[in-house]
Amino acid sequence: MVDYGYLAVGGAAVALVYAIYLVFAVRKQDPGNPKMVEIATAVRQGADAFLNREYKVIAPIAAAIAILIFFFIDLPLGTHGATAIGFLVGAVLSALAGYVGMAMTVRTSSRTAQAARKGLGSALTLAYKGGGVMGMAVVGFGLLGVSLFYLAFEKTIVSTPAIIAGLGFGASLIAMFMRVSGGIYTKAADVGADLVGKTEANIPEDDPRNPAVIADNVGDNVGDCAGMGADVYESFVVTSIAALILAALITSGALSSSSFGSLTTLITSNQLLVYPLLLGASGIIGSVLGGFYIRKSIKKNPMGSLNIALIISGIIAVIIDAVISDFLFKGSLLGWYLFSSAVVGIIVVVVIERVADYFTSYNYKPVKFIAEASQTGPATNFLAGFSTGLQSTAPSAVVLVLAILVSYFLGYYAAPSTLAASSKVLIGVYSTAIATMAELSLTGVIMSIDSFGPITDNANGIVEMAGLEESVREVTDELDAVGNTTKATTKAFAVMSAALAAVAIFFAFQDEANNIISKNNLFSKYGLAAGGSLTFALGDPRVIIGLFIGSLLPFFFSSFLIQAVGRAAIKMVNEVRRQFREIPGIMEGTAKPDYAKCVDISTTAAIRELAKPALLAVVTPLVVGFVLGPLALGGLLIGSVVSGVFLAFMMTNGGAAWDNAKKYIELGNYGGKKSEPHKAAVMGDTVGDPFKDTAGPAINSLIKVLNTISIVFISAIVLFALFV
Amino acid sequence: MVDYGYLAVGGAAVALVYAIYLVFAVRKQDPGNPKMVEIATAVRQGADAFLNREYKVIAPIAAAIAILIFFFIDLPLGTHGATAIGFLVGAVLSALAGYVGMAMTVRTSSRTAQAARKGLGSALTLAYKGGGVMGMAVVGFGLLGVSLFYLAFEKTIVSTPAIIAGLGFGASLIAMFMRVSGGIYTKAADVGADLVGKTEANIPEDDPRNPAVIADNVGDNVGDCAGMGADVYESFVVTSIAALILAALITSGALSSSSFGSLTTLITSNQLLVYPLLLGASGIIGSVLGGFYIRKSIKKNPMGSLNIALIISGIIAVIIDAVISDFLFKGSLLGWYLFSSAVVGIIVVVVIERVADYFTSYNYKPVKFIAEASQTGPATNFLAGFSTGLQSTAPSAVVLVLAILVSYFLGYYAAPSTLAASSKVLIGVYSTAIATMAELSLTGVIMSIDSFGPITDNANGIVEMAGLEESVREVTDELDAVGNTTKATTKAFAVMSAALAAVAIFFAFQDEANNIISKNNLFSKYGLAAGGSLTFALGDPRVIIGLFIGSLLPFFFSSFLIQAVGRAAIKMVNEVRRQFREIPGIMEGTAKPDYAKCVDISTTAAIRELAKPALLAVVTPLVVGFVLGPLALGGLLIGSVVSGVFLAFMMTNGGAAWDNAKKYIELGNYGGKKSEPHKAAVMGDTVGDPFKDTAGPAINSLIKVLNTISIVFISAIVLFALFV
Repeated sequence: MVDYGYLAVGGAAVALVYAIYLVFAVRKQDPGNPKMVEIATAVRQGADAFLNREYKVIAPIAAAIAILIFFFIDLPLGTHGATAIGFLVGAVLSALAGYVGMAMTVRTSSRTAQAARKGLGSALTLAYKGGGVMGMAVVGFGLLGVSLFYLAFEKTIVSTPAIIAGLGFGASLIAMFMRVSGGIYTKAADVGADLVGKTEANIPEDDPRNPAVIADNVGDNVGDCAGMGADVYESFVVTSIAALILAALITSGALSSSSFGSLTTLITSNQLLVYPLLLGASGIIGSVLGGFYIRKSIKKNPMGSLNIALIISGIIAVIIDAVISDFLFKGSLLGWYLFSSAVVGIIVVVVIERVADYFTSYNYKPVKFIAEASQTGPATNFLAGFSTGLQSTAPSAVVLVLAILVSYFLGYYAAPSTLAASSKVLIGVYSTAIATMAELSLTGVIMSIDSFGPITDNANGIVEMAGLEESVREVTDELDAVGNTTKATTKAFAVMSAALAAVAIFFAFQDEANNIISKNNLFSKYGLAAGGSLTFALGDPRVIIGLFIGSLLPFFFSSFLIQAVGRAAIKMVNEVRRQFREIPGIMEGTAKPDYAKCVDISTTAAIRELAKPALLAVVTPLVVGFVLGPLALGGLLIGSVVSGVFLAFMMTNGGAAWDNAKKYIELGNYGGKKSEPHKAAVMGDTVGDPFKDTAGPAINSLIKVLNTISIVFISAIVLFALFV
Repeated sequence: MVDYGYLAVGGAAVALVYAIYLVFAVRKQDPGNPKMVEIATAVRQGADAFLNREYKVIAPIAAAIAILIFFFIDLPLGTHGATAIGFLVGAVLSALAGYVGMAMTVRTSSRTAQAARKGLGSALTLAYKGGGVMGMAVVGFGLLGVSLFYLAFEKTIVSTPAIIAGLGFGASLIAMFMRVSGGIYTKAADVGADLVGKTEANIPEDDPRNPAVIADNVGDNVGDCAGMGADVYESFVVTSIAALILAALITSGALSSSSFGSLTTLITSNQLLVYPLLLGASGIIGSVLGGFYIRKSIKKNPMGSLNIALIISGIIAVIIDAVISDFLFKGSLLGWYLFSSAVVGIIVVVVIERVADYFTSYNYKPVKFIAEASQTGPATNFLAGFSTGLQSTAPSAVVLVLAILVSYFLGYYAAPSTLAASSKVLIGVYSTAIATMAELSLTGVIMSIDSFGPITDNANGIVEMAGLEESVREVTDELDAVGNTTKATTKAFAVMSAALAAVAIFFAFQDEANNIISKNNLFSKYGLAAGGSLTFALGDPRVIIGLFIGSLLPFFFSSFLIQAVGRAAIKMVNEVRRQFREIPGIMEGTAKPDYAKCVDISTTAAIRELAKPALLAVVTPLVVGFVLGPLALGGLLIGSVVSGVFLAFMMTNGGAAWDNAKKYIELGNYGGKKSEPHKAAVMGDTVGDPFKDTAGPAINSLIKVLNTISIVFISAIVLFALFV
């Protein structure tokens, strides 16, 4: 029988070929006048220099971890280095996804600025194409890595599902590094530039007289592009892996029992493993086709055009999903129930998009409330923004809980009634993973839409710095506002997937722990009757302690990131103040500020401040696992998700709401630009910056790192845990 | 055999008699000149009026709930109305504890102001005595209610432990009402007064020209005194109840099995039930004796004196605990292990006091970092304060986790080795409850120290408004700064006890759910084998969904409170601005501001904004329980604690840190009063206000309400849950 896994590779190839096509389509556009090219080149060089420096720091760490994994995991398990190889593949592709996306956005921004001179339509199409490179690269590399790994280790995966977690660990570790350092870089620069430039010196954003302006633009690229690219890449990979591991667990169960009835043949021919990969491919096709709408549509309402492109992509993906489900599962009930789960996943994308829009767009009450609160100063603005972020957690939670409930029970009741309850539960959770996979299959279009933000943000900067006409600025400004909303959506999208994937991964973790106990006859060590299994019950204080520690992590982790941004921003503010004071002629435009000094402050801070949060994420699960045992570690995994997801929603939605409250005032409400309420709103935006672009999205990576490292090390933990 | 429960009643009587003695001791002090009396009277009347109005709103709600409990819980269970009676007793005593404490603090403040004219020593002693009334009333009413209830329903408690939860539900529901409304009242007034007065009009705090000044002082009393009193009262009650329920579960186990060996006689004579009550009494004796130190000590270093009083109280309590443990448990291993757990609880008090001190006092790095960050404006101040709050969660978590681990294993290994593992677990959790009880036994001294804050805050206000000498202001200012730190400690103390008690209560909940299943033969409804029991396993999606919903609640709940404060503060700011604008002569002191209007804004907001968060806390667990079943509800209970405790630490520590960063600048650092950094720090303090005095401490009440309502309704939930 043909292995349908090759179809998934084909899907990945479509994404990558389309990405290459887009690269050429973008590169042949006019990059603008020499001044614009000069600025864009400076930004590109700064971004490249930062990534090079960062990769040099990360590479030896990754190599060391790969060696550790090889000796302590692969050798004992006899898995021929698969986990270590997976780790390296995941890590390299993660770095590459970020790099490629960023390489393209830095090259698209000056061209978008130039296109904006021709009007909104040209700029929109070009920015979407540039973002499309990122989107397609992310999803293409993601699907390619997972599919090839699946084809290479198909049999081993079914017998030892945990080996594939190495791929996820590599992807999420590098993504976390890039998210954290990129987030610190961009917000140190942004906050520093805004506080002195906008609030004290009363010069506009992106004004070339501001010494931090180049650092700010570099930051948009290394944070919002490279960081976001690596982050969403790992979301895609980790979700695929969660689905694959669950599929492998069910498949090995089917191989060893006959209670699957008529489904046995289907399951044992690895259909469950291939299914999530093909869903990923279907989303790619949907994303490519949906994207064509952008070029055909009327360009009056950019947000509306993007929304329609998303919906078209979703509908196409659903149709292909239906075909795949019918074909793979031969029209069985199981196939159609799983297909329904996939539809749930697609619906989640649309609904969280609405929720994020409601809480972050100035067309609705929450943002208007923040703007109104700005009239009484920064303090009430802060409180209003903070409480809006808190409030947004509730509808997000409802979506999350419903998605889990519905997709789980679809799987549970799709299982043959002859099956043991534990196998039904497993199929239920697999079904949840399928919903998550369907959600993430739309990564291509979501990322294309998202990359709007940084591209137009940079285009905006180039327009301002190159002194282009005011009408051009209006075009890029409008696109920038659209970008703000789409960025909030993508973060909600990533966080939601982290929560859903974590549930699936916990099951894989639990199953793997019990497998190791059973294989090594460790029942008495774990106080179990022979043949018994660990239940991660809330009635066990170790589980509760794990939950507390896990729940703590996102809080503590965020504190490092926000403090890092605060510290670096203070340095930046002082440096900008110093330059304004000491370099005569800056404000008159007769002397050039020392941009390099500000770039250096951000770069140094971003690299140096990476250590503590990264160590926290890597060391805590290992210490908890090896000291307190797998029960506490299982608690930690779930604890980190249940608090992390709301902290992340609070920060990303709150941050975007603050930003748009400022924009709402800039439209002329409550006194408009340069009024006291506007100053208060700028403060609020500044506070929201590290929330939405540093800490909030990094929590997503944190959760994934905790998940994947735990699965990778679970065999060693079960064997060597001290107090269990 | 004599029932030692009467000894606990005796302990409660000591507290109440001592409180009455303190009342007389305070009342015979000089209340100051007519102007001071006039101001104090205005504040007292405002506070009384508010509480009256609040009680009128609460009373019918409480009555209706009591009737519901009687018909739907007591009648079916055949418990002779014990749950409903308990609910009413808890509710009334909660309201009373708040009222008595507040009645005393409003009467102490003018006397403290007057005493401050004689020097720091007199003021300190008097403020401590006034606070002592509150402390002794809280712990006296708490112990009295629980002990009398125990004596009245001793047998029923052993057979149906859940009936005693009614007492806790009554206490925590009223405490939550008082915490929420008091918190909104006080911070709406405080924020409003500060934003216009300090920041815009540049007049000092408590300046009589500020129209919101009376409302601000009333708020200190209804929020920090009445609210805090009711809150700590319910912490004491709920913790006692958790210990009693676990004791009852173990006792009924001992009655029906012989594997307790030599311990059977001890346990079946209800020693385990009496033990936590006697620990409570020991803390009262310790608190009374420790308090005498305040009068004997040199008055140079008030914080040091209070600390020593606390340590003396702790040592005395430990000594009495040792005697009690030896006597009750006849020198058995169990007795000494449980005593060790009690020592863990006392140590927790001392350690969290150090943690809170480190993060909130200006002698250490975190607060200095916030002050430093104020130089670059409100935004960096805000980020620094927020990240400090986040950071403080980590050491708090370490204390919490260690306390659970150590106390649990002390109990687990104290159990006879012949016992089944499930019984050992129960004794382990009982031991955790004992640690919590020992922690809370120091409530008397902790509250006496805490009530410093509002008393000296009010004294400060009276000194300022009555225009007393600057030297008097210096004395009350110094005491106020001390009060800031002690207030942070008390909140950490209450939150820690909530987390510890919640673990114990979850076990009671789990056991009760399984009892009802077993009694009503509902095994098949819950998919259990006959005789099986529900395990609240993370591997069950209903548990995970419950965890998500539970974790959401503190975030969502806080959003209402912060938004309420923000909304009311905006109204207050606008009103104060209006009065400054429209009433000529206010700023010159020739015209009197319209204080009543501001009092009315706070009162109305506090009552009206109570509904949404209160409904959320009461309705969510019932809906989750009746719709998704006990598994989801169990998840909800733990979920609310694991996220709530860190959100609460973040808010209470962060808020106090902001406050003291402002005070640090006022000492002359970074430009001192009226400098730009000071303005930024005032903003930060304003943001921190609702964090530390509204949302943060209310999370504690929220967790307790969720806990107790779930236990009260668990029988009905198990019987009637829809989808289980």
